[in-house]
Amino acid sequence: MNLFEKIREIDNYPVEGVSFKDITTILKEPNAFKEAIDQMINRVKDLDFNVILAAEARGFVVGAPLAYALNKSLVPVRKPGKLPASTLRRDYELEYGSDSLEIHLDAINPGDKVLIVDDLLATGGTSSIIKDMVIEMGAEVAGYLFLIELEFLNGREKLGDYPVDSILVYKE
Amino acid sequence: MNLFEKIREIDNYPVEGVSFKDITTILKEPNAFKEAIDQMINRVKDLDFNVILAAEARGFVVGAPLAYALNKSLVPVRKPGKLPASTLRRDYELEYGSDSLEIHLDAINPGDKVLIVDDLLATGGTSSIIKDMVIEMGAEVAGYLFLIELEFLNGREKLGDYPVDSILVYKE
Repeated sequence: MNLFEKIREIDNYPVEGVSFKDITTILKEPNAFKEAIDQMINRVKDLDFNVILAAEARGFVVGAPLAYALNKSLVPVRKPGKLPASTLRRDYELEYGSDSLEIHLDAINPGDKVLIVDDLLATGGTSSIIKDMVIEMGAEVAGYLFLIELEFLNGREKLGDYPVDSILVYKE
Repeated sequence: MNLFEKIREIDNYPVEGVSFKDITTILKEPNAFKEAIDQMINRVKDLDFNVILAAEARGFVVGAPLAYALNKSLVPVRKPGKLPASTLRRDYELEYGSDSLEIHLDAINPGDKVLIVDDLLATGGTSSIIKDMVIEMGAEVAGYLFLIELEFLNGREKLGDYPVDSILVYKE
């Protein structure tokens, strides 16, 4: 199955000049979603990790089935105010404005080996912040796994010296 | 395994007098998450449906592994502006203020049999709106499946005459 064909590209969304990769057309087709998750599983089957860290909301769509199938801890990264217990919070700058992410302080422990999972690697800003939070919590970054990578945005450059893998790589 | 023991209850969150049921403590424990999803699978194994509809963001955490394991379509219900293609949008009133939900117009077709899945059934407001949207799109509501139900809030009364099942039912 060619998973690229299952992605819907939407031109000039969310802003002029951007071709948005819509994964809902993969989710809608059971065999395509299964193929995507199974390929992701296959990419990390030899990696040593015990925690999957996934950012809301689309990160949950790939992170949750991976955690279920691989029998790993699933730790959600959320926008401020969404996690009910004590959190580590980080604010960061975006191209326009700023944003913040939180992780439950007791969700990751020193010695944990953390796989950072998301649907998309674009500029790498979010994944880079999450990586910094993992390190600050005393855990180890085992690597990154993405469904889609926009290689031309050079997001990998922000991710540090860890394994990075992606299923669908767009060169331009 | 007693899954109730894996839920973290946080008193007076998000407001005074409410005991919030935090599922992140289930997600963090691989065997507990697997048990929760497997119990949900078991509850709907004889139900006739082809689409799982799940609302962001916690709904994705249960909906995505269910869709993966059961080989069903996964259709996301999202807050406004998050879905890139044409959507059906519904605005609805909350206790304080209002909110809106969107579903891609081409994600559900007449004849589809839709299981509405979420982590929590509380007052039933969100699930009831989603049910109305499914019907408006010409599809059939096959039923509802929740990980947690706060029975004392009588959410089922808003859900119409369809099968409703929940794994962890809180009586008070």
